[in-house]
Amino acid sequence: MQKTLVRKLFERVQGKGFSVQYWDGTTDRFGRGTPRFKLILRDPAVLPRVLKEPELGFGEAYMEGRVEVEGDLRELVRTAIEYRNALGESRKALFALKAAQMLPWRNSPARQKKDVQYHYDIGNEFYSLWLDETMSYSCAYFKSPNDSLHQAQLQKVDHTLRKLQLKPGHTLLDIGSGWGWLIVRAAQQHGVRALGITLSEQQVAETRKRIADLGLTGQVEAELMDYRTLADSGRTFDRVVSVGMFEHVGRANLPVYMAAVAKMLKPGGLSLLHTITHMTEDPVNPWIEKYIFPGGYIPSLRETIWLLPEYDFHVLDVESLRLHYAMTLERWAENYDRNYTRVVEQFGERFARMWRLYLHSCAASFRVSGLDIHQILFSKGLNNDLPLTRQHLYD
Amino acid sequence: MQKTLVRKLFERVQGKGFSVQYWDGTTDRFGRGTPRFKLILRDPAVLPRVLKEPELGFGEAYMEGRVEVEGDLRELVRTAIEYRNALGESRKALFALKAAQMLPWRNSPARQKKDVQYHYDIGNEFYSLWLDETMSYSCAYFKSPNDSLHQAQLQKVDHTLRKLQLKPGHTLLDIGSGWGWLIVRAAQQHGVRALGITLSEQQVAETRKRIADLGLTGQVEAELMDYRTLADSGRTFDRVVSVGMFEHVGRANLPVYMAAVAKMLKPGGLSLLHTITHMTEDPVNPWIEKYIFPGGYIPSLRETIWLLPEYDFHVLDVESLRLHYAMTLERWAENYDRNYTRVVEQFGERFARMWRLYLHSCAASFRVSGLDIHQILFSKGLNNDLPLTRQHLYD
Repeated sequence: MQKTLVRKLFERVQGKGFSVQYWDGTTDRFGRGTPRFKLILRDPAVLPRVLKEPELGFGEAYMEGRVEVEGDLRELVRTAIEYRNALGESRKALFALKAAQMLPWRNSPARQKKDVQYHYDIGNEFYSLWLDETMSYSCAYFKSPNDSLHQAQLQKVDHTLRKLQLKPGHTLLDIGSGWGWLIVRAAQQHGVRALGITLSEQQVAETRKRIADLGLTGQVEAELMDYRTLADSGRTFDRVVSVGMFEHVGRANLPVYMAAVAKMLKPGGLSLLHTITHMTEDPVNPWIEKYIFPGGYIPSLRETIWLLPEYDFHVLDVESLRLHYAMTLERWAENYDRNYTRVVEQFGERFARMWRLYLHSCAASFRVSGLDIHQILFSKGLNNDLPLTRQHLYD
Repeated sequence: MQKTLVRKLFERVQGKGFSVQYWDGTTDRFGRGTPRFKLILRDPAVLPRVLKEPELGFGEAYMEGRVEVEGDLRELVRTAIEYRNALGESRKALFALKAAQMLPWRNSPARQKKDVQYHYDIGNEFYSLWLDETMSYSCAYFKSPNDSLHQAQLQKVDHTLRKLQLKPGHTLLDIGSGWGWLIVRAAQQHGVRALGITLSEQQVAETRKRIADLGLTGQVEAELMDYRTLADSGRTFDRVVSVGMFEHVGRANLPVYMAAVAKMLKPGGLSLLHTITHMTEDPVNPWIEKYIFPGGYIPSLRETIWLLPEYDFHVLDVESLRLHYAMTLERWAENYDRNYTRVVEQFGERFARMWRLYLHSCAASFRVSGLDIHQILFSKGLNNDLPLTRQHLYD
């Protein structure tokens, strides 16, 4: 009976071939051509759970080892996304209904801190197993597919800083400054005074250590602080940047974030917002919301752009880095898999499987779903003293 | 009594100085410093009219010579914009109430043709008095402020075509192809097959002549056709571009335009939309709507971006060319003023004054109001075969 359900479900798959191995050891093949991966269903009870709540059900079953994937995990995710996209509108509506309803909630500073610490305070040791040496945990910028991840992360910082058109003496704020690479680089390369804020204690400690080691004390600061607290302080900046932070503020706080930037940015100042984007206003994937990013919300590009004029923000430049994030995640996933046994030793099998699924499924999503990432550069009010062209980004 | 009203109105002006000369020859000075222009009020009846409907009233009074401006006309427009921006919110609301209400109307193909011909069929001879040799009637692209207008118009075409990432054999559609420079250049430089459509008979005739002269018959076509008619024909293209045409479709037709592009663009194809934008959804300036662009509507950037996901359009690149349009209009206005007596001879004083006001006020608006222009590049569905960076635009 359960096997029949699997067959009914998968016989519509038009894409690349794969096989399914059932709990009793028997197998079926679906799709076209040589199987690219094998989906192992260890337990017939998995199926109704996954059908009821696809993302959460599959994610948990994978974490618990009740489903296993042999071969390329990304291929499974791609197949699932293409399968979902190929479903008729009525079936999509059904899926959407089943998915958790998105309710705009407001992340309080206390909740935000807890959420961010859940994610980032797993430990620098964990992240250093698969991030590059800069510990940059956001989309890199590849000038060529042959660039190393490390090189591409350095290039990302430089590309971002060039967009900001920094001048010596400028003040720069980095909201969600991570391990502090961007603020340090901005001070070294552009002679600015930089402040980075983050809600992760480990990130602040690591950043302060780097600032001291490099002799940048006084010129660069790192503070454990919520962006709303800083906005209330009345401090202002020539430039405000945030890289991979906007996804954490929660939907109801998108305008709160913008209002805070409006308060902190000087007239004519520039701000760069680097954020993952959805095409439309979609609910958070319930598995990712529960296990990876509690409190997060991926904004649509259009709802983000829609807010800007309310704060007299003028759009100067928008760039999609979608394939860059696919490549970044592919590198992370490869690093992760290479260190997989160490993750298992330190954090246990369930945690290790959870992150493995997360990294591989995100990598696939950036290639084949509408998941995107954009850098949005805007000025507060008009600024008539900017370079005429974007040539300076490419010299 | 009328003079008192003028004094009450202008004594709040904080900006650069100017003088007002009244109907009786007396003058007053306002603002700070040496007067930058003199506003001559020839008739006390002008004042209540301008107060009731500022844009329309001033525009008509200027056309009729009942007000005159000595000195820099752009400075007057800048002063007016800055004055309006400095008014409190309550006064702005009053201004907005007075301004014509914007009702989304639907431009029928017949109405659209009439409107476009009203504007563009004034005669090539008229436009050739102040456009550059390419007869490009849209924002140029200046690599340096010293570039000539002609050079900047050539650069605009090349910059736009580079964004489209054309390959030999590609099919390209230009909606609103003007005098045909872009399609000819695309064929010559990139080996594509190009079709340009426009609703102006004179533009089609001129373009066909150029195609024949350059031996491009067969490879490049120009047709007198509405974009909706072409979309209904089922013909599809690898690339679709429109430069300065979207402003003519009317607000209710913004989605109609998008749906037409979605029909005509092949999966994975790219489209570039080059359009003047407002910050928010503002009514058309009633003077411009009545005398210059009947049927037009300047979309906001955000309402344009909002539509894209509805047609599975993915945003790749957005660039503001605001200062480029200010510079373009400044060059046009200078050319126009140089040939002013010829315009008067051919079209009469009223028409000549109307266009003079239009060109100078647009030039000022791009510098000091929120009026902007954006090039928006998007793909239909996902395209994973694009260059990683925008470096190719700047080589």
